[in-house]
Amino acid sequence: MDSSESAGTQGVSLEELQLAARNHGMPLEALRYAITPVGLHYLLIHYDIPVVDPDTWRLEIEGLVERPLSMGLDELRTRPVEDLTVTMECAGNGRARLEPRPISQPWLLEAVGTARWRGTPLRPLLEEAGLLADPVELVFSGLDHGHEGGVEQNFQRSLSVADAVESGAVLAYEMNGQPLLPQHGFPLRLVVPGWYGMTNVKWLTRIEAVAEPFSGYQQVRGYRLRLEEDEEGEPLSRMRPRALMIPPGDPEFLTRERIVKLGPCDLQGRAWSGCGEVVSVEVSCDGGRTWDHASLDSAGPAPWVWRWWTYSWTPLSSGRFELCCRARDSWGNEQPVDAAWNVGGYANNAVQRIPVTVVD
Amino acid sequence: MDSSESAGTQGVSLEELQLAARNHGMPLEALRYAITPVGLHYLLIHYDIPVVDPDTWRLEIEGLVERPLSMGLDELRTRPVEDLTVTMECAGNGRARLEPRPISQPWLLEAVGTARWRGTPLRPLLEEAGLLADPVELVFSGLDHGHEGGVEQNFQRSLSVADAVESGAVLAYEMNGQPLLPQHGFPLRLVVPGWYGMTNVKWLTRIEAVAEPFSGYQQVRGYRLRLEEDEEGEPLSRMRPRALMIPPGDPEFLTRERIVKLGPCDLQGRAWSGCGEVVSVEVSCDGGRTWDHASLDSAGPAPWVWRWWTYSWTPLSSGRFELCCRARDSWGNEQPVDAAWNVGGYANNAVQRIPVTVVD
Repeated sequence: MDSSESAGTQGVSLEELQLAARNHGMPLEALRYAITPVGLHYLLIHYDIPVVDPDTWRLEIEGLVERPLSMGLDELRTRPVEDLTVTMECAGNGRARLEPRPISQPWLLEAVGTARWRGTPLRPLLEEAGLLADPVELVFSGLDHGHEGGVEQNFQRSLSVADAVESGAVLAYEMNGQPLLPQHGFPLRLVVPGWYGMTNVKWLTRIEAVAEPFSGYQQVRGYRLRLEEDEEGEPLSRMRPRALMIPPGDPEFLTRERIVKLGPCDLQGRAWSGCGEVVSVEVSCDGGRTWDHASLDSAGPAPWVWRWWTYSWTPLSSGRFELCCRARDSWGNEQPVDAAWNVGGYANNAVQRIPVTVVD
Repeated sequence: MDSSESAGTQGVSLEELQLAARNHGMPLEALRYAITPVGLHYLLIHYDIPVVDPDTWRLEIEGLVERPLSMGLDELRTRPVEDLTVTMECAGNGRARLEPRPISQPWLLEAVGTARWRGTPLRPLLEEAGLLADPVELVFSGLDHGHEGGVEQNFQRSLSVADAVESGAVLAYEMNGQPLLPQHGFPLRLVVPGWYGMTNVKWLTRIEAVAEPFSGYQQVRGYRLRLEEDEEGEPLSRMRPRALMIPPGDPEFLTRERIVKLGPCDLQGRAWSGCGEVVSVEVSCDGGRTWDHASLDSAGPAPWVWRWWTYSWTPLSSGRFELCCRARDSWGNEQPVDAAWNVGGYANNAVQRIPVTVVD
């Protein structure tokens, strides 16, 4: 996504609200589930959910290949099966906390989820097709169709063959033990562990090997870090580290502010990164002035899967507190205290802040 | 819900956005499914999704009864089974289109869905318990806990015995052929066909028969039609009629505006009411100046289930159009062209308006 507008501290527009109503966030209390229940995993759907007839749908692998492949869902299911647990986050998560706020899907912090995907690995399919040049890029095309930034398009993203292979990408036809739901890309989606959500093309119908760098809208306009509208910018790729906390205590309906009873309070949540493992989570109970280490569960099934963390907090008095958490990964990335603005509002992994009122 | 504030045509606040991020709407293209896929059905969760241990959870039926009942999920599953297809809509659907906008969950039009519920009918349970007075009300209590309007509470709503029995209420433990998901009320929820969503208490744990009208927050403060904050108001109950259209053509990402190619265009959607059957749907392709009858599918399995409708539109030129639709039910209710404001922003069933650009 690209954005040519931004709105300072003004209220959210009805257009942004329309996007928020259809692109679902994960309520933060759902961090308690290692695998996000179906329907609570975040959703970002650029256009409409397309209608796909599974009986006529086919995946085409074509372009610079020796043997173009075309296969239906039944054929894909006879191929090697791989199960993959993946924490997936939208590159725009945190956008609505930036000032001025870039105008697009107005995510606060809920654009994340973890699923068990089942599918067939991409690499053997590429080997079977036989790539005809090196290097080539792979262009993944979805069936979702619309207009964006003045360009009529199907959603398309590319990956280098190296990234596609080294990441362990899978073509997934099941999620949490069931066929993909329409909104998650039925009948097939690309799943690239560790990469931001836009990489994981839904309603996948074609993989094309090309010799030139792909110049489609979502590659060269959308999903790039830019400080000025007209610069080339850096492409988004792997998820930056983030820790999120289950908001403790009870919520107030309208403000979602938390009310916690005086006494010991277990803080807990999950942390992830697409850049190596999460190696530490720190918690602050005074708005970021002082930090303490949380306990990290043993590593998950893979470095890109979120890790559970806990921290015992005992407020010494009633009153207002601001709880924060931040993660660091094995590549040395750490969450910043302050958000780093960019035109598209991407990759804002500034620390989460939860205002809490402790009552006696 | 109650509201002591409203915001004219100002932007949506971050607090409202927080609610929109966690309370999922149904993307309107999902009107195509007679049964809404899991994860696309709307959600309105007042507080947090509670953690419920199905092994220790019990339903208590108590108060003014001869024989208090207490049963676990396994016992409920041995009782008579009833399957029920229900279209359910939030009483606040349409709120964000009111001016000034009442501050609460800012629904546009997506707070609806249709599910197949399986459970056990309420009436035999009441007969088994034996109600000790007449009239009594039944107070349904959920396990969701929070603060609202200054009142700490579990979500609770009441029904008269007559309404509970005549509506055909069911205690549901399955949705679309699977155990309830956490966000839809696991392990048990009340389902009251034809009534607005707040009636269908999730995470149900207690049914209490009481002799006095229930005066809990959600009954006497929330979910009432009021023109002034301090009046008693009318309680919300059955869904008013509404027709919704699948937005035709292709969307523009940011504005969601529709781009339609010149030529014949099938308009289609669904219409429902909690007050008898939908008996007509009308379509306007000129912003409500002229109306024409849509074709209504034969009635569904029950009057409270949405009906499919279609209308063939052939724009004669390119340009901008505004498409509208409206339903009428067998009780004589018809959707208004203009929204009727009220303090809480409830039951705004003004006609849907879809701006469309037809291109050559």
